[in-house]
Amino acid sequence: MAALMENEVFKAFSTYAAIVTLKMILMGPVTSYFRFTRGSFCNEEDVARKSDEEKKKLLMSHPDVERAQRCHRNDLENIIPFFFIGLLYALSGPNLSSALIHFRVFTASRIFHSFAYILAFPQPSRGLSYALGMFATFSMAYNLLSKVFLL
Amino acid sequence: MAALMENEVFKAFSTYAAIVTLKMILMGPVTSYFRFTRGSFCNEEDVARKSDEEKKKLLMSHPDVERAQRCHRNDLENIIPFFFIGLLYALSGPNLSSALIHFRVFTASRIFHSFAYILAFPQPSRGLSYALGMFATFSMAYNLLSKVFLL
Amino acid sequence: MAALMENEVFKAFSTYAAIVTLKMILMGPVTSYFRFTRGSFCNEEDVARKSDEEKKKLLMSHPDVERAQRCHRNDLENIIPFFFIGLLYALSGPNLSSALIHFRVFTASRIFHSFAYILAFPQPSRGLSYALGMFATFSMAYNLLSKVFLL
Repeated sequence: MAALMENEVFKAFSTYAAIVTLKMILMGPVTSYFRFTRGSFCNEEDVARKSDEEKKKLLMSHPDVERAQRCHRNDLENIIPFFFIGLLYALSGPNLSSALIHFRVFTASRIFHSFAYILAFPQPSRGLSYALGMFATFSMAYNLLSKVFLL
Repeated sequence: MAALMENEVFKAFSTYAAIVTLKMILMGPVTSYFRFTRGSFCNEEDVARKSDEEKKKLLMSHPDVERAQRCHRNDLENIIPFFFIGLLYALSGPNLSSALIHFRVFTASRIFHSFAYILAFPQPSRGLSYALGMFATFSMAYNLLSKVFLL
Repeated sequence: MAALMENEVFKAFSTYAAIVTLKMILMGPVTSYFRFTRGSFCNEEDVARKSDEEKKKLLMSHPDVERAQRCHRNDLENIIPFFFIGLLYALSGPNLSSALIHFRVFTASRIFHSFAYILAFPQPSRGLSYALGMFATFSMAYNLLSKVFLL
C-alpha cells in the first residue's frame, strides 16, 4: 500500500484531487454566506425565532443563493467524474508529465469556472472553462480505456 | 501499483466505471442541447445580447430542460454510490464472473434508465431499471461487508 | 491487491464508507415514500393512469418531498467529498486510531444530520452536525496534504 503513495503520478493525483474537492466543499459555506447576508432560507426550523411576517420573507428564494447552488451543482456534475476517471487513469500508469497537464488544466479550469459563475462574468468565459474541464476528463478516459478494456 | 491494473476484476471495474461515468457526464451536453433548442436558460449573462422582452422569455424554465436535469440528478444519486461500493468491492477480491454480472447489470440498467427518462417511456419501465441498478449496488455492498468489516 | 484489504486502516475506511454510502442511497427510497404517501410526483408518465383533474393535483410539489430531496442533496455535497478525501487519506498511511476517530465522527454526524433534517429538529442541531462532518473531512485533507503534496 505504501507503494501507491510513493508513486509520483498518484501523489500528484492526490494533491490536485484534494484541491478541487476542497474547492467543491467550500461552495457549501459560500451558499450559507449568501443565505445569511441575503436573508433567504428554505427550512421552517431555520427561521423559528422570527415573527410570522419575517418568516414569510426569509423563506423566499433569492437569486444569489440560487446562483451559488447552481455553481455547486455544476461542480458535483464535473468534479466527481474527474475524480472517478482521474483515479483509474492515475492507476493505469501514465507518464508524470502528461498526467500533470491533465490535472493542472482541469484544476485551473474549475477554479476559474467558480469565479466566472459566482461573479457572473460575461459569456462565453464560463462556458469555455466548463468545456475545457470536461475535455481534460474525456482525454483521461480515452487514455484509460485504450490501456485497460475488459467488457 | 502496476499489480492493480493487471488484476482482471479491477480492469473490468475500470472499464464499466468509465462507461457509466462518461454516460453521466453526457447528461451535461444533453441538458445544454435542450437549453438551446427550447430556448430556456437560467443566468442573466447567458442571454446578455438579447432584447429585454426576449430575455424574459429565455429565462423561463422549460419542461424538457427540467426533465434532463432530473435524469442527471438521478444519475448522480445512483452512479456515484455504484462507483464507491464497486471500487471497494473490486478491491476485496471477488471472483471475475460474479463481479462481471454486477457491473453489467448495473451498466445496462442505467443506460436503459436514461432512455426511459428522457424519452418518457411508460412506467414502470423507468422505476424497474432504477430498482435493478440499486439492487446491484446493494448486492456488492453485502459482498464487501461480509468480507471486510472493521467498525 | 490483496495487500490493500489486509491493511487495517483500509478495512476500516471500507466499512465506514460503505455505511455512509448506503445511508445516502436510502434517501432515494425515503423520497419515493414521501412521493407516494403525500401524492406528489414530477413526471407525466408517473401519473399516466389518473384522470386529468387528479393528474394536476399529483404533479404539484409537496414540502415533505422537497425536504427529503434537500437532505439527499446535502448528503451528496458532503459524503462524496468524505469518500474522495478519506480514500486518499486511508492510502497515505495514517495510524489506525486517529483514522477511526475521523471515520466515526463523520459517520455519526451524518446519520444524526439526516434525522435532524427529515424530522425538522430545532436548530442549531442540524447546522452543528453539518459543520462537524465537514470538520472531519477538512482534518483528513490537512493530514493528507501534509504527507503528500506534489503540484
